[in-house]
Amino acid sequence: MRVEKDFLGEVRVPQEHYFGGQTVRALHNFPISGLKLDPDLVKALGMIKYAAAWGNFSMGLLAEPVGEAIMEAAEAVINGELPDEFPLDPIQGGAGTSANMNANEVIANKAIEILGGKKGDYHFVSPNTHVNMSQSTNDVFPTAIRIACLIKSSRLTEATQELMKALRQKEKEFDGILKMGRTQLQDAVPVRLGQEFGAWAQAVQRSSHRLAIAEQNLQEINLGGTAIGTALNADPGYIEQAVKNLARVSGFNLRKAENLIDATQHADVFAEAADALKAFALVLGKIANDLRLLSSGPKCGFKEINLPEVQPGSSIMPYKVNPVIPEVVNQVVFQVVGNNVTISMAVEAGQLELNAMEPIIAFNLFQSYDLMTNVIQVFTQRCMRGITANKEICRKMVEHSIGIVTALNPHIGYENSCSIAEEAYQTGKSVREVILNRGLLSAKELDVILKPKEMTEPGIAGKELLKEKIS
Amino acid sequence: MRVEKDFLGEVRVPQEHYFGGQTVRALHNFPISGLKLDPDLVKALGMIKYAAAWGNFSMGLLAEPVGEAIMEAAEAVINGELPDEFPLDPIQGGAGTSANMNANEVIANKAIEILGGKKGDYHFVSPNTHVNMSQSTNDVFPTAIRIACLIKSSRLTEATQELMKALRQKEKEFDGILKMGRTQLQDAVPVRLGQEFGAWAQAVQRSSHRLAIAEQNLQEINLGGTAIGTALNADPGYIEQAVKNLARVSGFNLRKAENLIDATQHADVFAEAADALKAFALVLGKIANDLRLLSSGPKCGFKEINLPEVQPGSSIMPYKVNPVIPEVVNQVVFQVVGNNVTISMAVEAGQLELNAMEPIIAFNLFQSYDLMTNVIQVFTQRCMRGITANKEICRKMVEHSIGIVTALNPHIGYENSCSIAEEAYQTGKSVREVILNRGLLSAKELDVILKPKEMTEPGIAGKELLKEKIS
Amino acid sequence: MRVEKDFLGEVRVPQEHYFGGQTVRALHNFPISGLKLDPDLVKALGMIKYAAAWGNFSMGLLAEPVGEAIMEAAEAVINGELPDEFPLDPIQGGAGTSANMNANEVIANKAIEILGGKKGDYHFVSPNTHVNMSQSTNDVFPTAIRIACLIKSSRLTEATQELMKALRQKEKEFDGILKMGRTQLQDAVPVRLGQEFGAWAQAVQRSSHRLAIAEQNLQEINLGGTAIGTALNADPGYIEQAVKNLARVSGFNLRKAENLIDATQHADVFAEAADALKAFALVLGKIANDLRLLSSGPKCGFKEINLPEVQPGSSIMPYKVNPVIPEVVNQVVFQVVGNNVTISMAVEAGQLELNAMEPIIAFNLFQSYDLMTNVIQVFTQRCMRGITANKEICRKMVEHSIGIVTALNPHIGYENSCSIAEEAYQTGKSVREVILNRGLLSAKELDVILKPKEMTEPGIAGKELLKEKIS
Amino acid sequence: MRVEKDFLGEVRVPQEHYFGGQTVRALHNFPISGLKLDPDLVKALGMIKYAAAWGNFSMGLLAEPVGEAIMEAAEAVINGELPDEFPLDPIQGGAGTSANMNANEVIANKAIEILGGKKGDYHFVSPNTHVNMSQSTNDVFPTAIRIACLIKSSRLTEATQELMKALRQKEKEFDGILKMGRTQLQDAVPVRLGQEFGAWAQAVQRSSHRLAIAEQNLQEINLGGTAIGTALNADPGYIEQAVKNLARVSGFNLRKAENLIDATQHADVFAEAADALKAFALVLGKIANDLRLLSSGPKCGFKEINLPEVQPGSSIMPYKVNPVIPEVVNQVVFQVVGNNVTISMAVEAGQLELNAMEPIIAFNLFQSYDLMTNVIQVFTQRCMRGITANKEICRKMVEHSIGIVTALNPHIGYENSCSIAEEAYQTGKSVREVILNRGLLSAKELDVILKPKEMTEPGIAGKELLKEKIS
Repeated sequence: MRVEKDFLGEVRVPQEHYFGGQTVRALHNFPISGLKLDPDLVKALGMIKYAAAWGNFSMGLLAEPVGEAIMEAAEAVINGELPDEFPLDPIQGGAGTSANMNANEVIANKAIEILGGKKGDYHFVSPNTHVNMSQSTNDVFPTAIRIACLIKSSRLTEATQELMKALRQKEKEFDGILKMGRTQLQDAVPVRLGQEFGAWAQAVQRSSHRLAIAEQNLQEINLGGTAIGTALNADPGYIEQAVKNLARVSGFNLRKAENLIDATQHADVFAEAADALKAFALVLGKIANDLRLLSSGPKCGFKEINLPEVQPGSSIMPYKVNPVIPEVVNQVVFQVVGNNVTISMAVEAGQLELNAMEPIIAFNLFQSYDLMTNVIQVFTQRCMRGITANKEICRKMVEHSIGIVTALNPHIGYENSCSIAEEAYQTGKSVREVILNRGLLSAKELDVILKPKEMTEPGIAGKELLKEKIS
Repeated sequence: MRVEKDFLGEVRVPQEHYFGGQTVRALHNFPISGLKLDPDLVKALGMIKYAAAWGNFSMGLLAEPVGEAIMEAAEAVINGELPDEFPLDPIQGGAGTSANMNANEVIANKAIEILGGKKGDYHFVSPNTHVNMSQSTNDVFPTAIRIACLIKSSRLTEATQELMKALRQKEKEFDGILKMGRTQLQDAVPVRLGQEFGAWAQAVQRSSHRLAIAEQNLQEINLGGTAIGTALNADPGYIEQAVKNLARVSGFNLRKAENLIDATQHADVFAEAADALKAFALVLGKIANDLRLLSSGPKCGFKEINLPEVQPGSSIMPYKVNPVIPEVVNQVVFQVVGNNVTISMAVEAGQLELNAMEPIIAFNLFQSYDLMTNVIQVFTQRCMRGITANKEICRKMVEHSIGIVTALNPHIGYENSCSIAEEAYQTGKSVREVILNRGLLSAKELDVILKPKEMTEPGIAGKELLKEKIS
Repeated sequence: MRVEKDFLGEVRVPQEHYFGGQTVRALHNFPISGLKLDPDLVKALGMIKYAAAWGNFSMGLLAEPVGEAIMEAAEAVINGELPDEFPLDPIQGGAGTSANMNANEVIANKAIEILGGKKGDYHFVSPNTHVNMSQSTNDVFPTAIRIACLIKSSRLTEATQELMKALRQKEKEFDGILKMGRTQLQDAVPVRLGQEFGAWAQAVQRSSHRLAIAEQNLQEINLGGTAIGTALNADPGYIEQAVKNLARVSGFNLRKAENLIDATQHADVFAEAADALKAFALVLGKIANDLRLLSSGPKCGFKEINLPEVQPGSSIMPYKVNPVIPEVVNQVVFQVVGNNVTISMAVEAGQLELNAMEPIIAFNLFQSYDLMTNVIQVFTQRCMRGITANKEICRKMVEHSIGIVTALNPHIGYENSCSIAEEAYQTGKSVREVILNRGLLSAKELDVILKPKEMTEPGIAGKELLKEKIS
Repeated sequence: MRVEKDFLGEVRVPQEHYFGGQTVRALHNFPISGLKLDPDLVKALGMIKYAAAWGNFSMGLLAEPVGEAIMEAAEAVINGELPDEFPLDPIQGGAGTSANMNANEVIANKAIEILGGKKGDYHFVSPNTHVNMSQSTNDVFPTAIRIACLIKSSRLTEATQELMKALRQKEKEFDGILKMGRTQLQDAVPVRLGQEFGAWAQAVQRSSHRLAIAEQNLQEINLGGTAIGTALNADPGYIEQAVKNLARVSGFNLRKAENLIDATQHADVFAEAADALKAFALVLGKIANDLRLLSSGPKCGFKEINLPEVQPGSSIMPYKVNPVIPEVVNQVVFQVVGNNVTISMAVEAGQLELNAMEPIIAFNLFQSYDLMTNVIQVFTQRCMRGITANKEICRKMVEHSIGIVTALNPHIGYENSCSIAEEAYQTGKSVREVILNRGLLSAKELDVILKPKEMTEPGIAGKELLKEKIS
């Protein structure tokens, strides 16, 4: 144990640890979730400390050896070499001060060792004066959240690309399979199974685009704003250097926020990211619901498609297999929507020069990103790619359906079509039969009009017949 | 009363009404909210019917007199000339079919009269066969919602511009007023009152930009997709004409969705619009909260600013005035967040070829747009523009504060600054006095460093002194 | 026009109106939703003013003629005789002060007329001094919300009883219809259709019970607490009389809150009521979803039941009928969940001695009660009561299913059952056939075990055979 | 590695592990959150398996040695002796089947060892046939969730008791401290600081009562219902024994649900528990907000109270201390509200005979219980107990306030009081002075009426004077 001091008194710190007294205080204050700081956030904090030290050093604010030691120590954090040194609960009061001080302390102590000192000997390198130089939690922490989001968003985008590929592949594979479309769960008109997958692909693509827009806004950081965005104690030269360097280190196209005071107190950019995630989740949830419907059965459901069988479905019902992957997708969707509400409330709770609720924003945003990435990977690999179609079942449904009568509207009017559909349904006769009986159209005309496949493409079937009539 | 017939039987319709049997059925089925269809939605339906008739006519699908009569009737709807003919509840089952049929019936009967017939004589003009030609509720209704949103969004944008102007005006007006910034409701470092208004303006501007992005996506419509997006019964030439004409009539830059099947079944674009509204609301809520904090008092609060007094505040407490306008802003914010959850659930509930929950989506989206527009107008006119500052109160707080000690960090280090702040707070001495007593800096140096106004701008106060020390 | 004065200046009021200057100010301040105060809330305000006047009069605080005139005027409000005099927007700032003052003014002016004066001559009867005597908005408004909720809750309870009756009736009617149960949308084991309706009935009953518990807590009112619950200016004798009288007038079992300060500043009881509504809504939503699934078809779905056909389902697809009533139920469910979020945020936003966000709480709570009542009535009358079953379809599904193999577990073990099910599914043979082929059980034993109807009741089919084996 | 088989093929299982093939499959299928099954849930599963084995054994369905081995193995699970054997992700598809099978496999293999066999030799004891006998995931898993909730709820209740004690203690301690009450953040009328803590205590007590009601309903379990609540394969005697025994083992007053089919498919009881948590959270959030307001400062805020200083508040601003504990409370509140939305959506998503979304319900419910317990402990110990009052600051605010004028209403009317307040505010004179100047009341009368302390208790100050006037 070593003893550290601050203006509230002494704190005992286990000697082997690089974190210091502020971290220990926070450990006692926030035993809330039992979880630890997100590794991407820790990495981002390391990047910021690295870039800030560079900025300070390049402006002559930090002596060379101290600056170099801090940067070397920060690199260790970036590379994940000190995983046990960031033990804090992600749900914490203090607007992230504890997380920032955790990084300051770890890097200071590591730098002290690099400079030949012993942990806790802050005369070498001070967590506040040196590592945190020209910074405040209030610019460091929101910047770190943004970077961590960007890291996670790029992972999610990658997973989404794979899902989209799988969907597009199925779009092609199932293009020839004619089936009944359903609106409001009632038989509607024919569609091709491939078209359904194509529609989902399109929605996923649009969702992915929303993530990209959110990323663009996350790239605007408030580093340099210090305590409240006025950039007190941050030299303009330092700010420029720090931001530039952080972009380089992180690999993201970061830029300084137009108005640092705004960027320090408003957290709406996180709401925006959460909203992009939520909109995506809603799309995924709809797809998962559809897959579960279409694969319902095996004997008493729609059974138009088969999902890959990935585990026995029941502890009591023999040979039952359930759509467990879509189900876990659905559940992640609910989580992402709930997280969005949490984030909304936290964003609204900003007060004056700061939003002190950023830790819970980050916690939920990170979770939503990660859950989406993970579940999409599973969805793609263990479900989507292996889906097969029951072509025969699909075909029979179209044959027995009445919805094809819709194609007759342009030729005989909606009201006549209704009457035909009614007779067909009540008597069990085919639509074709009823029309011929009534002498409304000839067999030849019907051959032209009632082609189910054509119904799945734009246009009026038998339009040429129509023109004759009108003229 | 006239009697109309459909495949479910007869319906009695009051003779004077242009709406017909389907509308009457829906009136009986949906006595839910006691409200009526949104006028902007009705207008949008009129535009669509107009544009569709044009499209059908121009493709030779609709005879000239019928086409012209429908267009003339649709114009009456667009111009709001038949306000009592759209009595349906906005919360309705059937995915908007009743709303669409309401429009079809009103326009058919109006067109019948134009052609010299009597209401209900659908041989002249049929609601389904003629007015709804080449259309389905499933392409008409979502398109109408989009157009109504665009109408409402442009109103909101206008209101937002005014708010922004007011904020920017206050930014300038209060630029010279120095005050204490607060983070986590605790005294932090100085800021200028104008900067606070400037930060809010920036956030409002960003929010407005999000609305604009949502508008762009709302401009992509699925008209022409008919029942399930396959465009069954819709001639490609018609689709092109109808969309083009609808853009012209509505004045919006509408374009056909890339994938009509996708656009028919996925409602995520509405979630996106709702999210843009929500993100804006969160920003507004934060501003309203801040205004209420800053104007708290008159004797026992912050009282840095005065809100315009718009009504006596209490039925019992004499002469009390409350921040009623920000309070109503806060409440609208809560509503918009709740509406967003409703919309999220409804968007997720799409099934297969359609989202049947669009009526509740529209209901909430419309309400959110309108509430925001209305409350922002009031906020601008009855609150923001009339805010005044209590310069003296602001100044005194800065003088008595300890936070200015932060500017000393670069000169004497964070740890020394702490110790000085502690002594100042415990003894009631000024920060300056403590430093001089301790001989840490000279009076001359302090004159350079401790300028509150400079603390509100980027940089290290007394940086030149610093350089001397390091060198 | 008459001119009224308050400490902010003069206000012009249309002479014919009973409302006065405060109401006019509020009309200008809050043009937010375009809606008006809920009639039940207005009625409740009338009751409170009546009861308060009685209390004041009985304590000798109000002169007899004034007290009597106020009570007579309040009765007019209770009886809904002045519907145009409460024009205020339900979404308002000021914690309900405007609504309370609206009632004070209307009753004052009405009382003035009763006493022979002219509207606006507040020397006869003052809105604040007399009508609002011993009261504050802060005890009147929350009390009025509670009473309005109780009125609405009793209506909802009545509608719920009818729904429950309909469900129980169907439970009996469909008791003999055997069908396949489904878990995770996959075939499970048999159940009787009546049992499904019985399960829904049970859940509705439980939901209704939650409403009743919420009612009990809503009966605890803070009338008498005046401005902040300290009961300043409210004589203890008055409080007792007012509460007692309010209970009598309203017909509800009202009682004074244990701690008036608590009851004035905390709005959690409204969250509780909103939660009871939400939990009910979730149950209803699940039932509506199930009904839509079970009636899916007519050719390409489950089609185990038929919902009453209440309107044609499509503007394009002839003879299509959709489950529009369950769909409107679903949408109300989403609204109630969203409203719950709005209410939650508003409840959390209470500050110190008051929750100023009560107007939006009331707005959402009232809407949720009313929507639920209305939709349940429609659900009962236009859907539930008319549901019919397709017994043959149900029966055939059970026959073709494999799930009955579950009943064999106790006899041959889960692993053997799996193997049999697999063979049956792959070969198309019946479960019975496979077992006999394998010689696992005799035909006689199978007759005892594989009785589908028995599978819908507790117990091990063929338990007697089992005992023989074990022994 | 050992190889296990099921109807989908072979699975390789690490030899040292008690879990088996189904668990391994689930590990591959659900790498979603990176977390593990909740220990309380695992404990509950152990209890259920124990009780079920007892029930089966006592009905002669399970041979003695097998039954005893299962019970002994289950005890190991109950006692937490196999923590590494439950590695599954809490967010999983399959309605909890994987969790249930995990328990079945671990207990089977442990029992096999007890009986002298080797792991994987399921002829000794089969996970499905023996451990899961008379059970289904669909009755086991929801029952386990209920028990885990009860365990967690009792912990939360204990923490809540401590918080309540602390609040009541402060209520007494601060009873003598007079301060200004505030409504809508504006000065209202006096209150005693102790009364504020008392109001909070009351709301916490009410919240705790709601948890207790939820507990009562959670005690109703569906064990015995097996697959869909029809109790297929569950002997009535077994059900009685199992439930009775489970109550004994768990220590909770468990009882069989009235309607097992209902209890299997409806998850509203979890929504109810989540709502009780949410309502509690809203109360806590309001208290935390109030504490942050009242302790704002130290120089530029209300500063009526001091929160214990638990950590330095800033990395840049020296000597700053922030209300970090209330802040973490606020954040937990947002999480609990968001979790509630997730749970609501999942509850609504039940379909037909089952709610397959129970894993995400459990995940959120457990998190909410645990977060609340943890944060309340911290709140009590590190904040509430150490709060001190700034009596002088409180007193001075009352003295300078104008709100005391309210006490004059009964004596001189609201309108006169307004005028006096206005003059006092505008001129800076005291209320008393203005009245005397105007000759409205005598100095003696004012001595009787204007006693701030009396204003904090029910009644009309100087009522005796009033009576004289009226008579």
